[in-house]
Amino acid sequence: MTNIAMVEAAAKRLAGKAQRTPLLSSPFLDKIARRRLFVKAECLQHTGSFKFRGAWSAISALPEEDRAKGVIAFSSGNHAQGVAMAAQRHGIASVIIMPSDAPTIKIENTRALGAEVVLYDRDRENRAEVAAQVNMDRGLTLIKPFDNAYVIAGQGTTGLEIAEQARSKGVEDADTLVCCGGGGLTSGIALALEKHAPGLRVRPCEPEHFDDVTRSLLSGRIEVNKRTSGSLCDAIITPSPGEMTFPILNRLCGPGIVVSEEECLHAMVLAFERLKIVVEPGGAAALAAALFHGDRIKTDDVIAVATGGNVDKSIFQQALQRFGETE
Amino acid sequence: MTNIAMVEAAAKRLAGKAQRTPLLSSPFLDKIARRRLFVKAECLQHTGSFKFRGAWSAISALPEEDRAKGVIAFSSGNHAQGVAMAAQRHGIASVIIMPSDAPTIKIENTRALGAEVVLYDRDRENRAEVAAQVNMDRGLTLIKPFDNAYVIAGQGTTGLEIAEQARSKGVEDADTLVCCGGGGLTSGIALALEKHAPGLRVRPCEPEHFDDVTRSLLSGRIEVNKRTSGSLCDAIITPSPGEMTFPILNRLCGPGIVVSEEECLHAMVLAFERLKIVVEPGGAAALAAALFHGDRIKTDDVIAVATGGNVDKSIFQQALQRFGETE
Repeated sequence: MTNIAMVEAAAKRLAGKAQRTPLLSSPFLDKIARRRLFVKAECLQHTGSFKFRGAWSAISALPEEDRAKGVIAFSSGNHAQGVAMAAQRHGIASVIIMPSDAPTIKIENTRALGAEVVLYDRDRENRAEVAAQVNMDRGLTLIKPFDNAYVIAGQGTTGLEIAEQARSKGVEDADTLVCCGGGGLTSGIALALEKHAPGLRVRPCEPEHFDDVTRSLLSGRIEVNKRTSGSLCDAIITPSPGEMTFPILNRLCGPGIVVSEEECLHAMVLAFERLKIVVEPGGAAALAAALFHGDRIKTDDVIAVATGGNVDKSIFQQALQRFGETE
Repeated sequence: MTNIAMVEAAAKRLAGKAQRTPLLSSPFLDKIARRRLFVKAECLQHTGSFKFRGAWSAISALPEEDRAKGVIAFSSGNHAQGVAMAAQRHGIASVIIMPSDAPTIKIENTRALGAEVVLYDRDRENRAEVAAQVNMDRGLTLIKPFDNAYVIAGQGTTGLEIAEQARSKGVEDADTLVCCGGGGLTSGIALALEKHAPGLRVRPCEPEHFDDVTRSLLSGRIEVNKRTSGSLCDAIITPSPGEMTFPILNRLCGPGIVVSEEECLHAMVLAFERLKIVVEPGGAAALAAALFHGDRIKTDDVIAVATGGNVDKSIFQQALQRFGETE
């Protein structure tokens, strides 16, 4: 089980390797949120999402002999790029197993970061079997996206930075909204804040129809989404919280806030206009909650984590078309 | 004349007031630039450009009695918003004189930051006379956009951060490219680097037809642009370097690099895709130089300052349409 000492140890391993991302603000957004709003711009992290932190943390924690053999991961998204880059910068091999219908650009980006990409047919092949075959003689270590104690610890370093940055801005009591898929980032941040900024309470934010964490926190046990696809917020539509993340979430976080896709797109445009950052739909869920669900928030200040910026150009253009000021 | 002690003093006044903007990078951009490329994301500064630094520096340096009376500035762009917000956060009045044909959104944004906006008719009125009339009994202090020693010192704090951040990344010898209008930022950064990172040489970057600084550095005297409008890079089409900035530029900077509007739009899209930041055309000139004029650069590493992100939605969409990867 990840603990705060592991988060602090991960921060030491990540020092000088991860970007220290800024905590941004704008009086225009404060006005919409009706309170002071601070945005942790984790979309500016290497590879465009917080995932690099967890990947680096996990890889750097491996015994040297294991690490030298390389790592393997399943992902067509942000975790893939985080693992690929962290492996490349460690000088080790990475194999990323992706569905063959993943967008070409994501396959190419992951390859460009030095990964060996292995494609499988979602309908006819089992990805675990594909991975087992690839890994038959290689001894690659599997890096799971959230149910890995070192990954959670790495994501938690975001929380250590938030604690410091909030204090320097005089923020001591604030709901801290985090876009939540499997809960790796959310639980890691919660561990960091529990010790370093106990007035900051973590609240997971999720898109409609994919509110497994919100429901799990209400029922006290792991709930599962009915739908598994069909959301613009593809980065955070994991079917359920993880077995390692849920106990932490359950102890420290909540209640969750559920936002619509429309609100995420609108939040993306406001982030473009007022913060000058690029956020993907799933990475804008927390910001959308802060901006459009202020009635659910009781603190004078609020912090939202913008978790990623890997958005397709066409979706970004669609958002710009529909929202935002006209000149 | 601004000196390094003034830059260091400005940094103290700005501590906790300005954003410390990150120095970003991407292996994808390194590949295009054919060297390590670091981008100082000053578009993430308050009000979306570095101008907040100079405005805060100048206002905070005023004798208290003068400051209490308020400040005045001429600008329809980034300087207007920087002055308005810096004044508001000092709790003092600001008057911004703008042409009546300035985009409504810029007028509204400046007003929303607490400024009193006074419009004048470009064809029939003289802005200095308009300002004199507004200021008849008020004792407002004029904050010039670059020919003000404290403004230059404030912009120079960007250079102090670059020096520290570059050192922490092991960068000791690198051309440092800065988008250049009147030269306030460029000269301020040059003063900071002269002392704190002497291996980083500042080179001004300008759009075609507005290369007054590049030509001035070649001839050794202040040259003037023939055109005064008609560029997408509106933030940096000042007619000539300033009387206070040129001596510093001439002593420390160059040679300049001239880029096309096309290259700026392309650089904006690459910043969107790879760094997740929003950059305006004039704020992308240095990045465009780093990416597309590598043959002019001799150092193994290069630093580019992305100076602002206040781009109209329609221009951003146009850039996305024309450049960038397709999915």
